[in-house]
Amino acid sequence: MFREQIKVLDCTIRDGGLINNHDFDKRLVREVYKAVNEAGVDYMEIGYRNSKKLFSPKEYGPWKFCDDEVIEEIVSGIEKKAKLSVMVDIGRVDMEDVKPAKDSPIDMIRVASYVKDIDKAIHMVNQFHEKGYETTINIMAISRDQGLELDEALHQIEEESKADVIYIVDSFGNLYQETVEHLVKRFKGIIKTKEVGFHGHNHQQLGFSNTIEAIIHDANYLDATIYGIGRAAGNCPLELLIGFLKNPKFDIRPILDLISNEFIPLREEIEWGYIIPYAISGMMNEHPKAAMALRSSDKKENYREFYESLINVGFGE
Amino acid sequence: MFREQIKVLDCTIRDGGLINNHDFDKRLVREVYKAVNEAGVDYMEIGYRNSKKLFSPKEYGPWKFCDDEVIEEIVSGIEKKAKLSVMVDIGRVDMEDVKPAKDSPIDMIRVASYVKDIDKAIHMVNQFHEKGYETTINIMAISRDQGLELDEALHQIEEESKADVIYIVDSFGNLYQETVEHLVKRFKGIIKTKEVGFHGHNHQQLGFSNTIEAIIHDANYLDATIYGIGRAAGNCPLELLIGFLKNPKFDIRPILDLISNEFIPLREEIEWGYIIPYAISGMMNEHPKAAMALRSSDKKENYREFYESLINVGFGE
Repeated sequence: MFREQIKVLDCTIRDGGLINNHDFDKRLVREVYKAVNEAGVDYMEIGYRNSKKLFSPKEYGPWKFCDDEVIEEIVSGIEKKAKLSVMVDIGRVDMEDVKPAKDSPIDMIRVASYVKDIDKAIHMVNQFHEKGYETTINIMAISRDQGLELDEALHQIEEESKADVIYIVDSFGNLYQETVEHLVKRFKGIIKTKEVGFHGHNHQQLGFSNTIEAIIHDANYLDATIYGIGRAAGNCPLELLIGFLKNPKFDIRPILDLISNEFIPLREEIEWGYIIPYAISGMMNEHPKAAMALRSSDKKENYREFYESLINVGFGE
Repeated sequence: MFREQIKVLDCTIRDGGLINNHDFDKRLVREVYKAVNEAGVDYMEIGYRNSKKLFSPKEYGPWKFCDDEVIEEIVSGIEKKAKLSVMVDIGRVDMEDVKPAKDSPIDMIRVASYVKDIDKAIHMVNQFHEKGYETTINIMAISRDQGLELDEALHQIEEESKADVIYIVDSFGNLYQETVEHLVKRFKGIIKTKEVGFHGHNHQQLGFSNTIEAIIHDANYLDATIYGIGRAAGNCPLELLIGFLKNPKFDIRPILDLISNEFIPLREEIEWGYIIPYAISGMMNEHPKAAMALRSSDKKENYREFYESLINVGFGE
C-alpha cells in the first residue's frame, strides 16, 4: 500500500526557529535528531545557513547559521540514518561559508525563493549542486503567485536548474484541497525530471489534509514538524503524517515520546497552533506578520478589529 | 460562486455538552444563539432531548433534556432567524415529551443512530415527521460500518423514512478526503429524494477539510461548532467554515466576538482540540472513550503506553 518514493522531511528546528530567534538549546536539537532518526524520517532540516556579516550571532541562536562544527556536535555518536538539510534565503548566504558536501555534515541545501527571484535561486542551487549537495527550490507564497509568471518560472527551473526537488510552499496557509490538486498537477505538468514537494502551513487547520492531497497527486517530498511547531499557526504535524503513511519503516513512538517530554512543556513557553488571527490571515491570503504583531500586543484577542483591518485594506484606493 | 442549497448547522451547545455534562449556563447559550443568528447560520442545535425517567436532572445540565420552556426562555426577545434543532438517541426519548411542532420552539429533530439500529431510527423519525418537525437521521461511527449493511440501511432509509437529511457522522475522526469522497458518493447514489449531510470530528485535524470535501461532492447540510468545541478533539470550527463559504448571508464577526469573549476563557476550564491521544484514537479508528479516560488520569501525557495499548488489542486472540 505504500509508495516507496515518498520522503518525509522534518523541519521542526528550522521552521520552529522562526518563533524563537533560532535559539533552541543544543540538548533539545540533539533529542529531536535522535527521535527523527529512530522514527525513520528521511531528512531533518536543522536550520538556516545565513551569513554572519548580515546577522549577528549575538541576536540570534545557532540555528540561524548552522555552522558545520555545531551540526557535527549535535549528531556526534548517533548512528546517522536521517540525512541533514539546511535552508538558505536568496541574498543572505556567503557562498564561501559552504564547503564541498564531502567535507560537511550537511546532505541537502534548500533554497527558499519567491517566483520573482527564481533566476537567483537557480544560480544558487546550481552552485550547491556543483559542490555535491542534494538541492531543492522551495517556491514560497505560492497562493499569491499563481499567474503566468509561475509557469514561466517552472519552465526555467526544469530547463536550467540542477535542483532535485521543487517545493510548493503554502506560506500563508491559504490553500485547500482543490487548490493543492491544481498546483501539484500544474507543477508536474512542467517539472518532468525532478520531484515535486509540498510544505503546508496550518493557519486554517489544513496543513495535514493539504499534505495528504499533495500525496494523492504524486508529490513525493513532504515537510512536517513535531507537534506542528512552526511560524504562526505552524505546519503539518509529523506525528499525523507518519500515522497516515503506510511504509513500515516509520515508527511513530519516538515522536510521541518527544512530544510528551519536550513539546508539551515547550508549548507553554512559545506559541503556535490554531489561533484565530492566523486563521483570519490564512482565509484572507495574507502574510501572517500582521497577526504575529497582534499576538505580541495587548489586543491579542481582539479578533473583530483585526479582521476589519484586513477587509478594509485597499478600499478607497 | 456560492451554492444556495448549503445549510450550516451550529452544534456548539449539543456536541460541546458532551464534555461538561450539558451544563452550560443559560447566559452563554443565549449569547451563542444571538451570535449564530446574526452570523446567518441556518440552524442551531441546542442539545439532546432525553427522557428524565432515564437520566436525572440532578446529574446533568438542562441541555441533556431541552425542555420546550427552557428553550423559549433562551430565545425570547431575539428576532429568530436561525432554526432550532435537538438531537435524540435511539431508546432514550419519551415520545409523549415531544409536542406537535406547531406548539414547540423546536424546528428540527435529528435522530442519531448506528447502522444496526436503522429500523428503530426510521420508526422514530417518521413519528417526528408526523408531528410536523423537519427530521434527519445521523449515521454515527461510519468509519467502522462500511460493509454491505450500510447500503442496505441507505436503501431502507430512502424507501421507508420521511427524513429530510441523512448525515454521515465521522464519530471517530478517522476519515480523510478520499474516504469522505467515497462515502458522499455512495450515499448520494442511493439517497435520491433527501439531502446528504456531514458531521466531522477533528481528532486528526481533518474536521474542516473533510467538511470541504463533503461540500465538493454535493453534501448540503454541514455541522460545525464555535472554536471547534465538542467531544474529544471537537468538531469542524464554525469560523473556518463560514470563512470558506462564499454566501454573502454569512457574517463571521459575531462568531469572532464570541470566541474572544467566551470561548477563549471557556477553553481554560474544559478541554478539547488537538490532543495527541485523540489523534491516536482517530488514526486507529477507535472510539475516543479510552483517550478521554486517559486525559482524566495522571497518565494524561503518556502517549507511548496509550498507543501500545491500542495496537496490542486483539493480539493473541
